[in-house]
Amino acid sequence: VSISKKPYKGTRDFFPTQKRMQNYFFSKMSKAAESFGYEPYDGPMLEEVELYKAKSGEELINDQIYSFTDRGERFVAIRPEMTPTVARMVSQVHKEVSKPIRWYSIPNLYRYERPQKGRLREHWQFNCDIFGANDIFGELEILQIAINLFKSFGADHTMFEILLNDREIVDNVFKEVLKVDEETSYKLYKIIDRYKKVTPEAFDKTLNELNLDANCIKELKEYLKLNKTSDVIEYLKSKNLSDTSKRLENLSTHLNLLQLSDFIVYDPTIVRGLDYYTGLVFEIFDKNPDNRRALCGGGSYANLLKIFNEPELGGTGFGLGDVTLENFLVGHKLLPEFSTPKNDILITFQDDIATTQAMQVASELREQGLKVITTLDKTKINKVFNLAEKKGTQFVALIGSDEVTSKSIQIKNIKTKSQEQFKITDITKIQDYLKV
Amino acid sequence: VSISKKPYKGTRDFFPTQKRMQNYFFSKMSKAAESFGYEPYDGPMLEEVELYKAKSGEELINDQIYSFTDRGERFVAIRPEMTPTVARMVSQVHKEVSKPIRWYSIPNLYRYERPQKGRLREHWQFNCDIFGANDIFGELEILQIAINLFKSFGADHTMFEILLNDREIVDNVFKEVLKVDEETSYKLYKIIDRYKKVTPEAFDKTLNELNLDANCIKELKEYLKLNKTSDVIEYLKSKNLSDTSKRLENLSTHLNLLQLSDFIVYDPTIVRGLDYYTGLVFEIFDKNPDNRRALCGGGSYANLLKIFNEPELGGTGFGLGDVTLENFLVGHKLLPEFSTPKNDILITFQDDIATTQAMQVASELREQGLKVITTLDKTKINKVFNLAEKKGTQFVALIGSDEVTSKSIQIKNIKTKSQEQFKITDITKIQDYLKV
Repeated sequence: VSISKKPYKGTRDFFPTQKRMQNYFFSKMSKAAESFGYEPYDGPMLEEVELYKAKSGEELINDQIYSFTDRGERFVAIRPEMTPTVARMVSQVHKEVSKPIRWYSIPNLYRYERPQKGRLREHWQFNCDIFGANDIFGELEILQIAINLFKSFGADHTMFEILLNDREIVDNVFKEVLKVDEETSYKLYKIIDRYKKVTPEAFDKTLNELNLDANCIKELKEYLKLNKTSDVIEYLKSKNLSDTSKRLENLSTHLNLLQLSDFIVYDPTIVRGLDYYTGLVFEIFDKNPDNRRALCGGGSYANLLKIFNEPELGGTGFGLGDVTLENFLVGHKLLPEFSTPKNDILITFQDDIATTQAMQVASELREQGLKVITTLDKTKINKVFNLAEKKGTQFVALIGSDEVTSKSIQIKNIKTKSQEQFKITDITKIQDYLKV
Repeated sequence: VSISKKPYKGTRDFFPTQKRMQNYFFSKMSKAAESFGYEPYDGPMLEEVELYKAKSGEELINDQIYSFTDRGERFVAIRPEMTPTVARMVSQVHKEVSKPIRWYSIPNLYRYERPQKGRLREHWQFNCDIFGANDIFGELEILQIAINLFKSFGADHTMFEILLNDREIVDNVFKEVLKVDEETSYKLYKIIDRYKKVTPEAFDKTLNELNLDANCIKELKEYLKLNKTSDVIEYLKSKNLSDTSKRLENLSTHLNLLQLSDFIVYDPTIVRGLDYYTGLVFEIFDKNPDNRRALCGGGSYANLLKIFNEPELGGTGFGLGDVTLENFLVGHKLLPEFSTPKNDILITFQDDIATTQAMQVASELREQGLKVITTLDKTKINKVFNLAEKKGTQFVALIGSDEVTSKSIQIKNIKTKSQEQFKITDITKIQDYLKV
């Protein structure tokens, strides 16, 4: 019986082309975070299930998590998200290290889902968090990192936007304007979270099921119409809730000063579902009409360490997955070509006697930090150039029996069609010739 | 109830210090492979269990693998090694791509083991393979990559050695000299594989259980005494098995020509257990008397694609784990310090009014590719330098109300104790000053 060649359902094989693309993503992500002094971390792929239960409740655990009992009767899960891990790790060290703690990671995460566009059973997710930052400045930094990351791929404000809100505003509108109780408030969060994903009729239908009074529904619809920071400030003022908008106002001022307002849109429907956020919440949306969806989300939280019996330590963070990022970049034609590797030189020989000479020159050039491919068989000259193209080298070395006698190699520059002969001892001269 | 802060048993949290060390390892590994034109790949963490069963037999599956049944009744495993995955992937593309195929990966692997020194339940393993290479030249390349990698950490031949053997030699000695049947041959492989791990008495005892005749034991002991390539060549000649040593002889000649013989030792006890190797087998051994153990292993195989009903495609590969590598480097005092990050400048302000100016300069410097940390609160000058040290920056910027008025910043070079004032618009001048 033959074994399947395909990867496990919903997962991906990264052949060199795909892996180079992934390395490109990872490198941009690391640079964006490190330019703000964020430090890398990682945790294990497996965590005990109780960690997720404590944070997310039973729902996520039962439906989407990969969990199993190990041979030592521990109930473990493959991590579906990074936040519980980072919270666990921060809880170990936050008392000793200086604040704010700025950390980033690019973990591989698994969820048991029906695979579909932009959603597989695994993805790699850039996670960036700041803990213990004062006031709005941690939030500002996280938003800057997200914007800089997208810009580093060549994206601008015509391609993506950050829709943001503040859960304190939502909480206050529900409590003080709509005057609904906690249970209804919880249900409203769920309904509003799905606002963009359903038709207006479907939205109204779910809303009606809550049996709210007419005035409450009117007030809710008025709130849901807000789409500018200045309007929400005005609105909260009119409801005697000015204090509630202070933070958003301050954040908005600083985004302005840093000339980032073009990327920002206030959106009353961004609430980040039943998540653990307590302040700022945001989603980065693709402006591509064919891919109108959230690319990533984030926000501020006050109580992540609570489950470890640790004192409160607030933070802000966001996560961006590689699958949605790829869809975004493809849609805006921002994805470079990765099908060919990049190497410095292809060293070939045209006579068996030249094998050793080829290997020796290759070794010396590698010691100088060059990427050198050698053929392992003698290669006809007419095949050399095609091979060089496949291997992404601009230079090819040819070594025949004449070159062995004269202890030299011929090097051709494929682009300029020039050619030079070097003594094999002249490694520095060869190196200079290969510099383009 | 408080949740545990510790990682799951046998796994590791990578705090920034550890993650920087890991990045250092990964970067050296990638460079060693890419200097030979090896291309990166990766596969999923989860594979269907039948893939491992087909390759390794039931034993590994039952004892050491993390396996479970998913919600769709698929029997899956967290990958315990990379070879089955790379074989599966190569089987998809080998007909279309030019040979040899040179690939490397650094996957995270899991095995259910009792955690001990140098052996956890997970590790990250550098895997490097060449498929479809002619003759001994693929093997030569793999050995070179392994040696270059160790050298790139500062190691030399006084610190590690490559013990190598050829399974064809062992096969032929068993069959033609010892004249044992296949079943006994299989058992002998197992016993010899444990030669270095047991006392001579224990070895003799297990050997006696095979009930070999006296001559056979005498011949085996003679074989086991060989410890030089020249001796094994001589030995095989004396047994009329000269052909069997041709490959080893050829490999040895080329290792000599590339001046790598110092790293190589012939070792008749290296057989790589019941693994899938069919030709060259090798282990890299730590010469540190306190850590006398195999750091990594590899070899040549002829039939990896068989389970996919694909034509034969030979290859050579090796794997090196991060845990054993770390133990090696620590033992030889080759591990650099990673406790402090590296940043370019710490930007601080001494007056709230200077917040915006600090953030604006920081933004502009980041756009130039610099790593810039800003404080988010006003910071007293006497605390600035201690903070800079922790953040690994040689420069600190100070901005008070005077600097706001004059639209400037002061920058101190902590090492030289010099200091200069710059207009905040002079980003190029600031950049030049920060170049060290």
